[in-house]
Amino acid sequence: MKEKEFINIIKNTLGSEHIGDDCAYLRDLGIVISQDSLVEDVHFKKDFCTPFQLGYKSVMVNISDICASGAKPVYLTISLSLPNDIDADFVKEFYQGAKSACNPHTLDEGVRIVGGDITSADKIYISVCAIGDAKGRNISSRKNAKEGYKVVVSGLHGSSCAGLKLLMQGKSEPEKFIKVHLQPQAQVEFGNQAGLNIKSPYAMMDTSDGLMDALSTIANESGVLLEVDFNKIPYDKDLEQFDSWQDMVLFGGEDYGLVAVVPQDYNYGTQVGVAKQGLGVDLNIDGKTIHYSKQDVENKIFNHFD
Amino acid sequence: MKEKEFINIIKNTLGSEHIGDDCAYLRDLGIVISQDSLVEDVHFKKDFCTPFQLGYKSVMVNISDICASGAKPVYLTISLSLPNDIDADFVKEFYQGAKSACNPHTLDEGVRIVGGDITSADKIYISVCAIGDAKGRNISSRKNAKEGYKVVVSGLHGSSCAGLKLLMQGKSEPEKFIKVHLQPQAQVEFGNQAGLNIKSPYAMMDTSDGLMDALSTIANESGVLLEVDFNKIPYDKDLEQFDSWQDMVLFGGEDYGLVAVVPQDYNYGTQVGVAKQGLGVDLNIDGKTIHYSKQDVENKIFNHFD
Repeated sequence: MKEKEFINIIKNTLGSEHIGDDCAYLRDLGIVISQDSLVEDVHFKKDFCTPFQLGYKSVMVNISDICASGAKPVYLTISLSLPNDIDADFVKEFYQGAKSACNPHTLDEGVRIVGGDITSADKIYISVCAIGDAKGRNISSRKNAKEGYKVVVSGLHGSSCAGLKLLMQGKSEPEKFIKVHLQPQAQVEFGNQAGLNIKSPYAMMDTSDGLMDALSTIANESGVLLEVDFNKIPYDKDLEQFDSWQDMVLFGGEDYGLVAVVPQDYNYGTQVGVAKQGLGVDLNIDGKTIHYSKQDVENKIFNHFD
Repeated sequence: MKEKEFINIIKNTLGSEHIGDDCAYLRDLGIVISQDSLVEDVHFKKDFCTPFQLGYKSVMVNISDICASGAKPVYLTISLSLPNDIDADFVKEFYQGAKSACNPHTLDEGVRIVGGDITSADKIYISVCAIGDAKGRNISSRKNAKEGYKVVVSGLHGSSCAGLKLLMQGKSEPEKFIKVHLQPQAQVEFGNQAGLNIKSPYAMMDTSDGLMDALSTIANESGVLLEVDFNKIPYDKDLEQFDSWQDMVLFGGEDYGLVAVVPQDYNYGTQVGVAKQGLGVDLNIDGKTIHYSKQDVENKIFNHFD
């Protein structure tokens, strides 16, 4: 887990309370900020996607981070580094995709791309910074889950992982899974509703690194046990044709769904479990209960440094 | 000029009025935002600098962008992509350098690093996003120079270029030039004074791509002629030992000085010229006046895509 080791070094060196969450909440400015990068041959392969899809996804994964905070995504900057053989059409299509992702149908005013830079590099590097407006909103924290709260989720889980598997196998069907992988949809309305309507502290995270990663992180950061029923987790039934489809639902990344642990009286999203005294995740699946400690989950999830 | 061509494509695709300036001023949020990247073997060579210096410079170049707007630099996020052979010491020293740059002696409260991400890559890729607090400040624009205004600068020009030349020649003296190249100082106080005290619209830019680039950009974006006396430009006299030292003063990049075109009654910085009716830059040098059009300057400055 080199990535987590590095993050600990960064936390210790900076002594900042912000590092570790996907978004930093800057109370004095009334904003949240997030920055995420996509690197060629680490996060994507050029052969698997069009420039449009790459621009689209780069923006959407950052909008997803803002949505996970409960803030309203409003502005983006994009830093794009490109090999010298990339032409003007690539740049145009990339930004058409980026712009398209800025206008999800559920977000009335859309998000605006206001800056960044462009430079050369050996491979394609994309780093996007997103700003969310936090004014008048209740901003989530991974530390805010409490015993007695319920666990709610949005989106379908495992589809993006299925799409990636199909791409790696050179397959093009079922296309819906590939589309979810290449052009994911941030859960804008779920995040919006939470930020506007939940009155107490609550926890929320996106499932960029998988559903179980989000559940485990919230559980361990908050010091609670999340008991989750696999049967209640929304997924596309066509996933069942894949080997290890249950692992795809639980550990597959890049669905950009949201997981929230919220007070019982908040009614939005699909309830999949409850928060109890204890630590980690208890998963009820196939008539058994499996306990996942923080380490169990970290051992299973995909790590870009491994 | 592939970089400028790409920027035009981005502007046209997005239809955004923000793209083109180093900082975007987000009035509704009361902030400015900037994002800049450093790519190994494009912007720096690993052999020329320590991890500390790399972290330091990555932060400082982004603080400089904020200073050029007249806003107060307050927060940063850093996205760091690293080859797998990089170890924990590199990450620690990089962030020690980054943290050190966040506390320039002229900035009382310092800047805080609040987020970002870390991932793997073939080469080192650093993208920093900086936020400036614009509340109570007069934010500059490159379009704001007016006839009758004066041209003022801060910092010493050409030193960083000299430092880079020494490094490329394998030399280590004069060390002061190398230090400026590897650990530049943003003109925090000059930017601060402008943002707080100038009451009318004014233009300001940093000299990341050279003094002449900043002069020419302001002149052409504002539709004025800037008449500048070379003799008044502050530079280190030891530069004169280099071949083409005048070109280094004028076209050398990465000094991170500031150039401002401001009302006559504003007294801060070193006056080097005046804004007149016309377009471009008239440079008085060696008893002659040389006119530089936008194209003349673009043909001379370093372009990362060439």
